[in-house]
Amino acid sequence: AVGHEVLFFPDSAMPCRNGQSCRRQQCGYAHNATSLVRLLQWIGSAKRSLDVCVFSITCDELSDALLAAHRRGVRVRIISDNDQMATRGSDIERLYAAGVPVRTDKVAAHMHHKFAVLDNRFLLNGSFNWTRAGVLENEENVLILDAPEVAVKYSQQFERLWQRYA
Amino acid sequence: AVGHEVLFFPDSAMPCRNGQSCRRQQCGYAHNATSLVRLLQWIGSAKRSLDVCVFSITCDELSDALLAAHRRGVRVRIISDNDQMATRGSDIERLYAAGVPVRTDKVAAHMHHKFAVLDNRFLLNGSFNWTRAGVLENEENVLILDAPEVAVKYSQQFERLWQRYA
Ligand SMILES: [Zn+2]
Ligand SMILES: [Zn+2]
Repeated sequence: AVGHEVLFFPDSAMPCRNGQSCRRQQCGYAHNATSLVRLLQWIGSAKRSLDVCVFSITCDELSDALLAAHRRGVRVRIISDNDQMATRGSDIERLYAAGVPVRTDKVAAHMHHKFAVLDNRFLLNGSFNWTRAGVLENEENVLILDAPEVAVKYSQQFERLWQRYA
Repeated sequence: AVGHEVLFFPDSAMPCRNGQSCRRQQCGYAHNATSLVRLLQWIGSAKRSLDVCVFSITCDELSDALLAAHRRGVRVRIISDNDQMATRGSDIERLYAAGVPVRTDKVAAHMHHKFAVLDNRFLLNGSFNWTRAGVLENEENVLILDAPEVAVKYSQQFERLWQRYA
């Protein structure tokens, strides 16, 4: 049996920043392990490298997690879509300004992937764009797979696109 | 090691309907096993069931393959997005008219999945919508995984959505 986890969206709410210790009465945020919380934990578990190849990144919780990984010394690289980068709310510029290596396609066609490779071992892949609508509104999935023999094929494709968009 | 195949798009051309035996001079279609050809072969390999949960289906080659599966007795079911169904070129109406069970979401949020479960065993999952732009223009991926323990989770999600969209 292959090591894996499947996350389905939408979540019922964004995670509460107070977590389990939240004392606010009628707090509208989530205190359980939502799909976003699990995804943030996966990003937080990266030790060496995180290659993110995602069409649209606008969810601040996720870009904060990428920035935190970058700041703790993980080699974070991001490929995204140029049209999406120009969209209001895109976090790509903010990550780039913070020193995270970012490249985008330069064509009208979409760089439509939504995958990430973590420590050359775990593949995160599915329909999920890293957006608020992806978290809270749409039906979405992310499959996390512990299969280096699969991850390597995505890493190779990442490298091809990384070179092409240089 | 987990049984798998990874397909990356775009293809350089749509497959030639004459295949390897094509004699047309300067035929602009593809005669090799493109990613679309492999995907069509996967669909063609279905023996019992094919649960397709894909945001947008407009590629005639793919809907023809679904129709062929339906006609040879495979239990084909399709979930798609209602907004996409209304889009010009959608094949959902055609499949429905041909007797393929189809259900769509009834909300403004997107039914954004792009997965299929084949014979309760193989999972096809990734960024790829079943569209001509997905085949010929965009950077896309489909991971085909031979892992019933993963496929079952997507089958369960399919059933949940199937009931919800009844
Ligand atoms: Zn709270
Ligand atoms: Zn030809």
